[in-house]
Amino acid sequence: MKVKVTIMLKDGVLDPQGEAVRHALGALGFDGINGVRQGKLIELDLAAGTTRADVTAMCEKLLANTVIESYAIEM
Amino acid sequence: MKVKVTIMLKDGVLDPQGEAVRHALGALGFDGINGVRQGKLIELDLAAGTTRADVTAMCEKLLANTVIESYAIEM
Repeated sequence: MKVKVTIMLKDGVLDPQGEAVRHALGALGFDGINGVRQGKLIELDLAAGTTRADVTAMCEKLLANTVIESYAIEM
Repeated sequence: MKVKVTIMLKDGVLDPQGEAVRHALGALGFDGINGVRQGKLIELDLAAGTTRADVTAMCEKLLANTVIESYAIEM
């Protein structure tokens, strides 16, 4: 069973990686870049029968730093 | 205009970050983790009128290393 977890920095948390990408795109001549946020996408291949609660526990315990990051589960 | 770009390592390319996550989940007591792949999610806030071709150019020139990574654009 494939499950996708997306992890992004919460709004208001500074994203230096995204800012670096924004500057680099500008330096390459791309205009109209108003903002860039960079996050993580984790694809899990799980045994059948794994519940959303299990995946939530994985996010809370390991995958996301919930102080500064939010996560979304797609399964 | 919000555009999402997901960048994953191509199949067959070793993903040590994903492997580390898999081991860590196992160590935390989560069973049935058959595989983990970790990629990037980049959210771009672009000026209206930016075309898919523009975003493709951004991916090819900067965002993705197309030798080992594949990208998908959602706009």
